Amino acid sequence: MPNLNENYLKLQENYLFSEIAHRVAAYTKQHPEKNVIRLGIGDVTRPLCQCAGEALLEGAKEMMSADTFKGYGPEQGYEDIRKAIVDYYKRSGVEIDASAVFVSDGAKSDTGNITDLFAHDNVILIPTPVYPVYVDSNVMCGNKVEYIEGNADNDFLPMPDWDQHADIIYICSPNNPTGACYNKSQLKEWVDYALKNQAVILFDAAYEAFVSDPELPRSIYAVEGAKQCAIEFCSLSKTAGFTGTRCGYTIVPQELVFTASAGEEMSLNAMWNRRQCTKYNGTSYIVQKAAAAVFSEEGIHQCQENLEYYRENARVITDTLSDLGIRFYGGVHSPYVWFECPKDMDSWTFFDYLLHEIQVVGTPGAGFGENGKRYFRLTSFGTYENTVEAMTRFQDLLETK
Amino acid sequence: MPNLNENYLKLQENYLFSEIAHRVAAYTKQHPEKNVIRLGIGDVTRPLCQCAGEALLEGAKEMMSADTFKGYGPEQGYEDIRKAIVDYYKRSGVEIDASAVFVSDGAKSDTGNITDLFAHDNVILIPTPVYPVYVDSNVMCGNKVEYIEGNADNDFLPMPDWDQHADIIYICSPNNPTGACYNKSQLKEWVDYALKNQAVILFDAAYEAFVSDPELPRSIYAVEGAKQCAIEFCSLSKTAGFTGTRCGYTIVPQELVFTASAGEEMSLNAMWNRRQCTKYNGTSYIVQKAAAAVFSEEGIHQCQENLEYYRENARVITDTLSDLGIRFYGGVHSPYVWFECPKDMDSWTFFDYLLHEIQVVGTPGAGFGENGKRYFRLTSFGTYENTVEAMTRFQDLLETK
Repeated sequence: MPNLNENYLKLQENYLFSEIAHRVAAYTKQHPEKNVIRLGIGDVTRPLCQCAGEALLEGAKEMMSADTFKGYGPEQGYEDIRKAIVDYYKRSGVEIDASAVFVSDGAKSDTGNITDLFAHDNVILIPTPVYPVYVDSNVMCGNKVEYIEGNADNDFLPMPDWDQHADIIYICSPNNPTGACYNKSQLKEWVDYALKNQAVILFDAAYEAFVSDPELPRSIYAVEGAKQCAIEFCSLSKTAGFTGTRCGYTIVPQELVFTASAGEEMSLNAMWNRRQCTKYNGTSYIVQKAAAAVFSEEGIHQCQENLEYYRENARVITDTLSDLGIRFYGGVHSPYVWFECPKDMDSWTFFDYLLHEIQVVGTPGAGFGENGKRYFRLTSFGTYENTVEAMTRFQDLLETK
Repeated sequence: MPNLNENYLKLQENYLFSEIAHRVAAYTKQHPEKNVIRLGIGDVTRPLCQCAGEALLEGAKEMMSADTFKGYGPEQGYEDIRKAIVDYYKRSGVEIDASAVFVSDGAKSDTGNITDLFAHDNVILIPTPVYPVYVDSNVMCGNKVEYIEGNADNDFLPMPDWDQHADIIYICSPNNPTGACYNKSQLKEWVDYALKNQAVILFDAAYEAFVSDPELPRSIYAVEGAKQCAIEFCSLSKTAGFTGTRCGYTIVPQELVFTASAGEEMSLNAMWNRRQCTKYNGTSYIVQKAAAAVFSEEGIHQCQENLEYYRENARVITDTLSDLGIRFYGGVHSPYVWFECPKDMDSWTFFDYLLHEIQVVGTPGAGFGENGKRYFRLTSFGTYENTVEAMTRFQDLLETK
């Protein structure tokens, strides 16, 4: 009989979004007449931009003719898309080498699979609250995790404790779920701390496209020294509405070389390349073609229109919270708005309260870790009409009359 | 400083196909005027069938309109494609539950990632020669592998050694690279052996569509008892030319429940579900739509035309080998033809010989393990014209005049 990976027994029973889906399904089954508005899961609603859609159509046609058909592509992604990503970074003044770029089917796969490259005895720092994949993927392979406390005192932007040693540090900025975004000097302190510890930062930049202040870094590589200590994950899910189309990319700089126990040099770039060549067969050609179109001048412009639409939704949410006197985080450089649950409720109670009273689905902060237990997340990814309707119901429910 | 996963140091230097690509690139750079014919990597050349192509076009259009746009889908795959896969099995008399079906971006990802579910102290049997991902993915996570010897004596269809204990057994049938295909009574013996050992068989059925004899099993579930002991991986890469489109599926029966060290019951279906929900975000919607079209009555019929085209190529290859008196394996229920290198060459020497003398690229058997070191693989996935041209050159080169 095989011994199974018993680390799975240590996982929380349900993955956050499955549990939400389960509760919503149970509610709608009982109340099929109710109009449930979903501002919970961070899923976009705007269609693909014209550029991306046309590239998909063209790609599909290419696949239907022997002359233009594409079989296996390079596991790392086609050269033109890797080059387009390099150029995208260049627009915000960041230089990346194309050999560092690995195209994938999404940041979730890559942030989950990156644990493959490390041993299981490292000091791993993970912020709380944060995207659950970081913790779960580490628990799954038996790693011990230490938490960096995000809370109202530090505006959910925890800074390094220089007395504590670390080997691997997860950072997500703009943060999921809090929407909090590190400024350059804060990120610089994390980079300096990592360099001092010879640690690796795993930087999740999935929400970078929402940053509108040019002073705020959209990539950790905007900070000097970051190529010596950081891997960056990014995604077209939020940037270009690719949640159902699936494309992301991971930057593993050639500079990330460490010494193994017997003195051999090991390059994380070479290791990730080996991992992907062994366990991944490249991203769908037509999807890569659409992704390359997203990074064209016109594609970037078209995506901005969608981003502006979601920003307007975020304003609807934050205006309502302001009116109600509820302190919130995010909503400016982020599609997420994060706030303390009113009426002293814990987050799952507040989830059920909103679902049952006003049929609005949000995300309970508890799903993002201990420090989220009394907080709640709403997203700006709904339609404008639904967002307005949801926030009108929200205001009516919570207004002190 | 993080401790890295030093198991990567134990891997062979280069992944087989990267090394082939490297040697071919070096040759073509030196000889740009030569017409190199690639019958090496198992990559298809026929375009997608009409059904699949039209589904891609339709899917792309849906993604361009807010009314029909699709965001995140279920991590396990959409219900209609899971159902279509159940129906596909039903056509060959095999009953599968839809809850056992997990759609993915390809069998390579799933056969690579399945090691996540197991501890690292199991007795793992892997045939040699075989698809290198099985061994590499186990080496990467520190597992010890024992080999099942395939050779000319057993027609590259090794059978269980009942005196040996096993916990996990990899089987690929029709085999990559040898093309050898187990019959039902042989597979039955493997299933009986697994049941006796309470072992799990990881059955790779990526080439099932090439089986044309209805007596030969295309799924391990055609064998009684297999649901109690086997996970099956399959792919649309070869069945429907999806090598660049990317779609596969893995069947993890609910019956696969084992006892953990402290007595808890652990279901492999639940574990794989948790793994995919945590580290995978579902397969691209448009790709799933195309995959569902492949499994329609018309899609299956259209795919058969492509399969027949490749079968004809296989006949061209096997006829040439027969003429030359070279004993071969596969080529009937498989796109692969496997034979001992002539002139007493080892497989990389023969690879270079064919590349330099007649500009034909094949795959050296050494890339598939110790027992492949004196063998060579050709595939039927080229165009008919190229296959005929390559085999004419091959015959001219190797004919004893």
